[in-house]
Amino acid sequence: MSNSGKHFLDLFFNPRSVAVVGASHNMMTANYFLASNLVNLGYPGKIYPVNPNSTEILGLKSYPDLKSIEGEVDLVVISIPARRIPDIIRDCIGKKVKGIVITAGGFSETGSGGRGLQDEMKQLLDGSGIRVIGPNALSPLNSTLNFIIGFGPVLKLNKGKLSFIFQSGLYQPRLNYLVSEMHLNINKLVDLGNKMDINEVDALEYFGQDESTGVIAIHLESIAGDGRRFLKVLKETTRKKPVIILKSGRTEAGAKMASSHTGAIVKSSDTVYDAALKQAGAIRAQGLDEFFDLAKIFEYYPSLENNRVVISCFSGGEGVIATDFSQFNGLRLAEPTSESRQRLRPFFPPWEVDINPFDTGVTGQFASSDVTTAFIDTMSNDPNVDCMAIQIGSQPYLSPDGAKESSEKFVKLCQDVIRRGKPISAWAFDPRIFGVMINMLEAERIPFYPSAERAVRALGALYRYGVLKKRE
Amino acid sequence: MSNSGKHFLDLFFNPRSVAVVGASHNMMTANYFLASNLVNLGYPGKIYPVNPNSTEILGLKSYPDLKSIEGEVDLVVISIPARRIPDIIRDCIGKKVKGIVITAGGFSETGSGGRGLQDEMKQLLDGSGIRVIGPNALSPLNSTLNFIIGFGPVLKLNKGKLSFIFQSGLYQPRLNYLVSEMHLNINKLVDLGNKMDINEVDALEYFGQDESTGVIAIHLESIAGDGRRFLKVLKETTRKKPVIILKSGRTEAGAKMASSHTGAIVKSSDTVYDAALKQAGAIRAQGLDEFFDLAKIFEYYPSLENNRVVISCFSGGEGVIATDFSQFNGLRLAEPTSESRQRLRPFFPPWEVDINPFDTGVTGQFASSDVTTAFIDTMSNDPNVDCMAIQIGSQPYLSPDGAKESSEKFVKLCQDVIRRGKPISAWAFDPRIFGVMINMLEAERIPFYPSAERAVRALGALYRYGVLKKRE
Repeated sequence: MSNSGKHFLDLFFNPRSVAVVGASHNMMTANYFLASNLVNLGYPGKIYPVNPNSTEILGLKSYPDLKSIEGEVDLVVISIPARRIPDIIRDCIGKKVKGIVITAGGFSETGSGGRGLQDEMKQLLDGSGIRVIGPNALSPLNSTLNFIIGFGPVLKLNKGKLSFIFQSGLYQPRLNYLVSEMHLNINKLVDLGNKMDINEVDALEYFGQDESTGVIAIHLESIAGDGRRFLKVLKETTRKKPVIILKSGRTEAGAKMASSHTGAIVKSSDTVYDAALKQAGAIRAQGLDEFFDLAKIFEYYPSLENNRVVISCFSGGEGVIATDFSQFNGLRLAEPTSESRQRLRPFFPPWEVDINPFDTGVTGQFASSDVTTAFIDTMSNDPNVDCMAIQIGSQPYLSPDGAKESSEKFVKLCQDVIRRGKPISAWAFDPRIFGVMINMLEAERIPFYPSAERAVRALGALYRYGVLKKRE
Repeated sequence: MSNSGKHFLDLFFNPRSVAVVGASHNMMTANYFLASNLVNLGYPGKIYPVNPNSTEILGLKSYPDLKSIEGEVDLVVISIPARRIPDIIRDCIGKKVKGIVITAGGFSETGSGGRGLQDEMKQLLDGSGIRVIGPNALSPLNSTLNFIIGFGPVLKLNKGKLSFIFQSGLYQPRLNYLVSEMHLNINKLVDLGNKMDINEVDALEYFGQDESTGVIAIHLESIAGDGRRFLKVLKETTRKKPVIILKSGRTEAGAKMASSHTGAIVKSSDTVYDAALKQAGAIRAQGLDEFFDLAKIFEYYPSLENNRVVISCFSGGEGVIATDFSQFNGLRLAEPTSESRQRLRPFFPPWEVDINPFDTGVTGQFASSDVTTAFIDTMSNDPNVDCMAIQIGSQPYLSPDGAKESSEKFVKLCQDVIRRGKPISAWAFDPRIFGVMINMLEAERIPFYPSAERAVRALGALYRYGVLKKRE
């Protein structure tokens, strides 16, 4: 856990010790979770609760102030009212801590009074060498170290290679949902808040260098400075790994609101952002659903060089919708070889049907075994096919073998296909009845989405990145 | 249950007796569910299973053929291989049945052979007065009568005023999901399949006249004839009730596919459809997610005359996204009165924050009671506010009272607001932990969506319909 020779941000993600100023033993307060998550998830470093009204918090010795702590303190998390924070900053300087995270709000986002307080902190810190995340920032997170600063209970962290940059705490209350329900494998996460010191350029640069980060997802509302440095670092980073960006505050009303809650000034128009982000090789997401959808698929797959998709659906109507949205998202229908048609012939009805999209609803009436499985297996060997969108579910309520057994067979097959470099994106007509299979798929890095539109949109993004990479 | 004086389609939804040709006692076949759903859901009419290999199915007397049935038969459902169907049609004519539903495929969608078979049926039926849904059609459904023809187990039907027109069976496997998870209150549903006789114009006309249908949602792939009659009936219908249309087969590849699976020819370009549908007053949905989202909100609320929305969020960042998508969807941020600001003052932090979007994450730090509740109550009385988008969840894990009690209070308040004519659309950061509240909300006709984007998109559609209605 040494930080020597590393990017200066590394210490925020790999602190050997952390002091929590404002830690509480009262479960009814958000501050309780600042230390409880560290204890419950098993963060291996030292935890120092700081609270003048307690001697023990969560079984840990509690300190009245920072100076009373015997050992060294790498990181200090400050979660107390704004006006009392300058005093804590002085203590931090005295204690020679390396980094500070200020979760508290009440600074530049509140107008001139708070801005004065933020300026006061800046002056205090000037020349101290101490770097600051925030204020108004709920972070960081490093799943490798079971390290997370948060205001609610965090149940578990999937370890993966997806790293997030946020500019607000919007991720916080849905973190458990993202991990357990959306199966996001988060490596690191930072919420920058008011960006008094550390900003998105620093975070992007760090995640770009970070070997355990394979994909970066950024929710931006504003860009520090004139944006040129951000775009330069972004361009360098997208050469190495995919970067997904959700830029909000896109409408006039949204931009005004963005400015009021983080104190940042949102200057450029949305079209300017759009062109600049694209030129820098970033994948832009339109909304929060798409942002998390794309973050997931890029954590699983690198990119797509070619865009020929095969689709397997449960009804012809669903196939038409999946086809429409494949084309909207830059994919085109693959034309499988005659060998593939030949192999799937036994599953066809007596009349000729189109092999792509493959309508398992029709073909299933003419073959007793699993048509979806046969389809995937055939297409995995077809040189005209680059990726697959699969509506899972071979009438499980009609199948005599258990859901678990057939799920295992299906997932094994999908793994095979992925090993051959063909991404699969899946959806189902009713996610509730495929829970077993969905969990298995996600565990094996096969992304599941709630609808055909979202499944093919995610695949399309892989190809968008493939094209962006080639252009450089 | 008399059909006299009613639209000819009424008998398909209110049959006094139904014969199921191809009914099966084998649970491993799709045909099993044709009769089992009727029995399990409690369809009150007569059910006559027809299968030459059985004497009893599901405890019901089974008949070798239609002629052996003693009583009158209103409706015959035919689910056997295509080539044997003309003989059954002859039996139907002999038995003087009133309507036929052909669920079986293998007709015009299979090319010239199947088309010949379909023409043969047409000639047989000519002059008989018997009307036909299908072939290749899984329908109808009438929840008032617990009447449903389907290939999978249907667990329950919520009775409501939403009626669907489909052109394929894509709704079928997700019916339980639509009812139980998406809380759609379906009144009637028809899948038209190959539209050999009855088409979307007939269905639209019938649902337009049907008093128990308050909103119509149509998934179209093709339009019968030159489309003029459809647009005329559509225009008449949208004057009376909202009509949501998902038109797929929008891309070249999608259109080709649509033609192959229903045998219909898709002629016009997507932009032509777009303009024509809009002119006729229909609300067009882009994909299946939006289609069901809008179907739900129109079943709950009629329309919106004005578009001033207030937003309550759990974080400023979420508020920015909700604001962006409100504007994308035709809404604008309401400017609450100074009285409202005054009433909410105790919930504000010491500094000035924008009242819309209302950031409960910030305000919650400065007030112990439920800020969301105070916000909704205040806005319900504000004359500058037309509708509300609410991210539910007042830190339930920090709340000492039980989830059920606070949910009940919240839902009661929402009901009050809706009574004052202000639609509410809700979402949550983690639907799993708000299950109790979501079910209560939906039971009281307050729509819940999985994200801010989708919640405000649905509200925006209400206003789109309000504008369309005024224009006429």
